[in-house]
Amino acid sequence: MQVGIIGGTGPAGRGFAARVANAGHEVLLGSRDAERAHAVAAELVGGRGWPVTGCANDAAADADFVVAATPWDALIATAKPLAGSLEGKIVLSMANALVKEGREMIAVYPARGSMAAQLQAALPGSRVVAALHHLPAAQMEDLDSGLEADVLVCGDDAAARLESCALIDSIAGLRALEVGSLAQAGPIEAFTAVCITLNIRHKAHSTLRLAGI
Amino acid sequence: MQVGIIGGTGPAGRGFAARVANAGHEVLLGSRDAERAHAVAAELVGGRGWPVTGCANDAAADADFVVAATPWDALIATAKPLAGSLEGKIVLSMANALVKEGREMIAVYPARGSMAAQLQAALPGSRVVAALHHLPAAQMEDLDSGLEADVLVCGDDAAARLESCALIDSIAGLRALEVGSLAQAGPIEAFTAVCITLNIRHKAHSTLRLAGI
Repeated sequence: MQVGIIGGTGPAGRGFAARVANAGHEVLLGSRDAERAHAVAAELVGGRGWPVTGCANDAAADADFVVAATPWDALIATAKPLAGSLEGKIVLSMANALVKEGREMIAVYPARGSMAAQLQAALPGSRVVAALHHLPAAQMEDLDSGLEADVLVCGDDAAARLESCALIDSIAGLRALEVGSLAQAGPIEAFTAVCITLNIRHKAHSTLRLAGI
Repeated sequence: MQVGIIGGTGPAGRGFAARVANAGHEVLLGSRDAERAHAVAAELVGGRGWPVTGCANDAAADADFVVAATPWDALIATAKPLAGSLEGKIVLSMANALVKEGREMIAVYPARGSMAAQLQAALPGSRVVAALHHLPAAQMEDLDSGLEADVLVCGDDAAARLESCALIDSIAGLRALEVGSLAQAGPIEAFTAVCITLNIRHKAHSTLRLAGI
């Protein structure tokens, strides 16, 4: 599959790009700065021969399957101008609205309940899915980290959820768990504040597992 | 330790009562209906000789350590009249504000961000801690269920968090993880919607684990 990553040069985008390329998918690693995207793509690939191409965000939006990995407060401003290219496509949002307060991350609640719902409202012709929120970015990028994590997947389009789960399940170390509608994105995104705060307090790189499923 | 459970006759309260009694603690199992509390306590204990006593909620509020296990929409109305007895004490809130929508549970957000924050505002002299939200009630009550779950603990009083963690760690199958301030209660409570919706979709009794800590 061809996967475009909007805002792919940050930690979340890089980590996902490495795993998805390693799984054999073609990656269009987008950035608002195409030069920077080229440099990050080259650094990520190293000598591994992965099909990762750095490009501008609008070129990444031309991919079959698009992941939005920008900082949360740049998500809507970045995605909205790309609405034409994203029409009819799955757009997977990794965004979490969080602010730092001392040694804690605090969840903030977008007016529509989640960043994914904000994105769905900005891209009414796209099929927004929310997933990949709780993954430790450094462990994603390091393919030898032994990462084993469950990935919660939600969205209002059932086929888009299933396609997203299939892509995630093709990635080593990840297990996709379909949750339900986009209404679940609010709690899923906000829970990232808890995961990161736990990591700060316990000096850990925790991963979320749902036992018994 | 003497543990009082306000609203202890519902599934969450019963499950917690069984585990905490089995760990050797004395339980005052409260209900607005003391007769019902007596009956549930007798049924829970069976022939096991646990020190579980059914009582009215105001008697449960006299315990050293108090857990609030009422339905979420009865929490404030039940706890506020007990403010005098609860003054200076730890009050551990298990409440999650959730509504059912078809095959999903939907998180709803109390005006102060969480039910625990609503409780703290109603009991300004108490030390409110939020924990025990994600546990499957039936598996809690069945001591042979093989339950192994992580319990996220938050609150604004550090000593109250630590005491709560010690109580939880004394219970077989549970590991307490201190998260941070009461601001974390919103995401922790809301995430229960995700856990229950997963269980409905996957016909499972999932438990939350944080690997890597």
